[in-house]
Amino acid sequence: MKRTSRDIRTAHRYEVLRQVIAASPASRQGLASATGLSLATVATLVGELLDLRMISEVGFEDSAGGRPRGLVAVNASGGALIGVDIAETYVHVELFDLALTVLARADEEMRPGESQPERVVGVVAAAIASVVARAGVAPDRVLGVGVSVPGQVDRDTGVAEYAPNLDWHDVPLLDLLAEHTPYPLHLDNPLRACVVAELWFGAARGHEDAVVVNLGTGVGAGLALGGGLHRGVSNSAGEWGHTTLVLNGRLCHCGNHGCVETYVGAPGIMQNLHELSPSSALLHPGNQTATIDALARAAAEHDPVALKTVQDTARYLGAGIADLINLLNPEVVVLSSWVASRLGEPLLDEVRRVVSRHALGRPLAATGIVLSPIATDPVCLGAATFALEGALRTVGQRQETVRGTAPARSRTAPPS
Amino acid sequence: MKRTSRDIRTAHRYEVLRQVIAASPASRQGLASATGLSLATVATLVGELLDLRMISEVGFEDSAGGRPRGLVAVNASGGALIGVDIAETYVHVELFDLALTVLARADEEMRPGESQPERVVGVVAAAIASVVARAGVAPDRVLGVGVSVPGQVDRDTGVAEYAPNLDWHDVPLLDLLAEHTPYPLHLDNPLRACVVAELWFGAARGHEDAVVVNLGTGVGAGLALGGGLHRGVSNSAGEWGHTTLVLNGRLCHCGNHGCVETYVGAPGIMQNLHELSPSSALLHPGNQTATIDALARAAAEHDPVALKTVQDTARYLGAGIADLINLLNPEVVVLSSWVASRLGEPLLDEVRRVVSRHALGRPLAATGIVLSPIATDPVCLGAATFALEGALRTVGQRQETVRGTAPARSRTAPPS
Repeated sequence: MKRTSRDIRTAHRYEVLRQVIAASPASRQGLASATGLSLATVATLVGELLDLRMISEVGFEDSAGGRPRGLVAVNASGGALIGVDIAETYVHVELFDLALTVLARADEEMRPGESQPERVVGVVAAAIASVVARAGVAPDRVLGVGVSVPGQVDRDTGVAEYAPNLDWHDVPLLDLLAEHTPYPLHLDNPLRACVVAELWFGAARGHEDAVVVNLGTGVGAGLALGGGLHRGVSNSAGEWGHTTLVLNGRLCHCGNHGCVETYVGAPGIMQNLHELSPSSALLHPGNQTATIDALARAAAEHDPVALKTVQDTARYLGAGIADLINLLNPEVVVLSSWVASRLGEPLLDEVRRVVSRHALGRPLAATGIVLSPIATDPVCLGAATFALEGALRTVGQRQETVRGTAPARSRTAPPS
Repeated sequence: MKRTSRDIRTAHRYEVLRQVIAASPASRQGLASATGLSLATVATLVGELLDLRMISEVGFEDSAGGRPRGLVAVNASGGALIGVDIAETYVHVELFDLALTVLARADEEMRPGESQPERVVGVVAAAIASVVARAGVAPDRVLGVGVSVPGQVDRDTGVAEYAPNLDWHDVPLLDLLAEHTPYPLHLDNPLRACVVAELWFGAARGHEDAVVVNLGTGVGAGLALGGGLHRGVSNSAGEWGHTTLVLNGRLCHCGNHGCVETYVGAPGIMQNLHELSPSSALLHPGNQTATIDALARAAAEHDPVALKTVQDTARYLGAGIADLINLLNPEVVVLSSWVASRLGEPLLDEVRRVVSRHALGRPLAATGIVLSPIATDPVCLGAATFALEGALRTVGQRQETVRGTAPARSRTAPPS
């Protein structure tokens, strides 16, 4: 499982570009010290990124004597990236410039029963065409599309192997999508997209070990360990939602009982509410979004049933997060995705209280628990960075090995 | 949390020595390709290790034309390392040569009520003196002592912060031990010692992501992620024994309910047996070792109560291991420590069955579950490698910054 020298070179190229995006303008010396790479390596990689027009020279650093240092900055208009977040209740598509600023977005609601793969592919393809048109970006400048779909995915084949909440099994998603959209496509899942978004732009920046707890219809824990994304050996790490919290507890659609997800995913929270108050007006049967929204509003108004539901949910969630802290000893745990952002501070406060009772002293003292500070959809942002990583991987590769057609790349990539 | 260049250099030196120990003799070219380091870096590090007399030149590789390649091998007698495994029911001390071969060992039983720190320190110090004498090793050739103690430890201060099964709180273990033993001391815990032993010599060799499940009085999961030991931000990762498997379940001495450890640690297994058959002759109240031994013998003879106890234990253990597989997606899960080695194949078979029902398809397909193949005490072996790492860290450092006195080091280290 050793990485090839090509992998390492791609990773270094990506790391340098990531630093330039995070802090433009930057000198080669500054990039070397931020990335730990040698100045010679950085100079070579900067040269490649300049050739690709992903970055540009923007002048010189003030210098008190000595040779002035050239500065580079991201060339925001040097290309566009698209991030697609396919969730159980919605599809979000965002188009970014190379500075990872959103230029256009399309949001589509998904109602129960509308999640057949062909239908979703149609919605996604139309949304991609729409954001490209609305951003006024020439199609040959779109470097790629990152697609996030929940559950277990095979990045190499582009197959969504198992997405229980969508009831998808072995859906060849990228092949289906390639029939409708001309851009290079890259598949991954929201856990990994969220981690990368937090590592680049959010609460995990600068941390070696971070856990991003994703609370939506499904739940999971994206892992950043040792400063980078932990994928596991077959890219399926992070399925914390399917770890046992209550042996022989609630039945989960994965076939087990007592999984974390059955207590703290949106349907699990609805069940918590139902067990507390079966006839509550907050409960919108069959509508997760409306129920979570109603809960959030009522909790803000100190409604006792809403507050108790948040407390009950936090009791499960806090125990599960304490498990992550005891097992992984991270510096920060970030609560992300739509359920976390809607329930917000009231949920966070209760979770912190529960975790402080459950976690062991030493790892507890080293950990902060925060809400994601990313204002837009972190999954789209992370998915777009996967597309960027994919584009950098193909630098110098022959075009036919790239999935889909890549009109932009044939112009921007140097001859191999 | 960036590593300093000294850290990186120590890590590289360690990596090269580790490769030489794993596969002597080795050429510089072979070491470069095995470690991923440049040939120039390897040549420098090999030179340092030769100066330290930890390795020696042993001839030339057969070569079909071209310049013959020099070979180096570990200089087994170039130094000695001591590994100390302080457990709840015993103390093991082993003395190793630099090829990590055991030259002498001392085993001491610990009875309930004998685990006061001063008492344990006395036992350990005497055992250290005993193995040095019996191995016939000159004291000035002992490079260091690695000490493993269960629970949460602070490596920098040498304090055992919290060892619930020993009832230790903030015990300044290395300071106490330094009063009785003249060698450099290094503290860590058995989870990390076992992982390192498996990475060097056992079932985790060559794997990027591995989990070593430690089954003793306490339980935990040592983590090797991305090819190296995952310590977490405050060196307390791996406390899987204190993750919740049964919310509101059995009371754990950590204060929580339903921790994994309460079901699969030796006292938990005794409780499983007691719940099944309160008057079983297999049960030796107050004596974990005798009970686990009796269980193992009876299971081998197909005793129904013993088999059912193993099954019940495997039901908990398998669910907990499936959690690790779903969360971390490792290539291999290794069952280690005394309870695993005594219950052996019958436990392993049941665990595999339970895991195959509980884990998700994709990570399950990528994972093997095996018993540790290490015949000696893996904790002593791992602890000795920590002492070796510590000795390499001090190369070129001023002697006064080293904990304890280090007569051997002042002769072998090059001038700083």
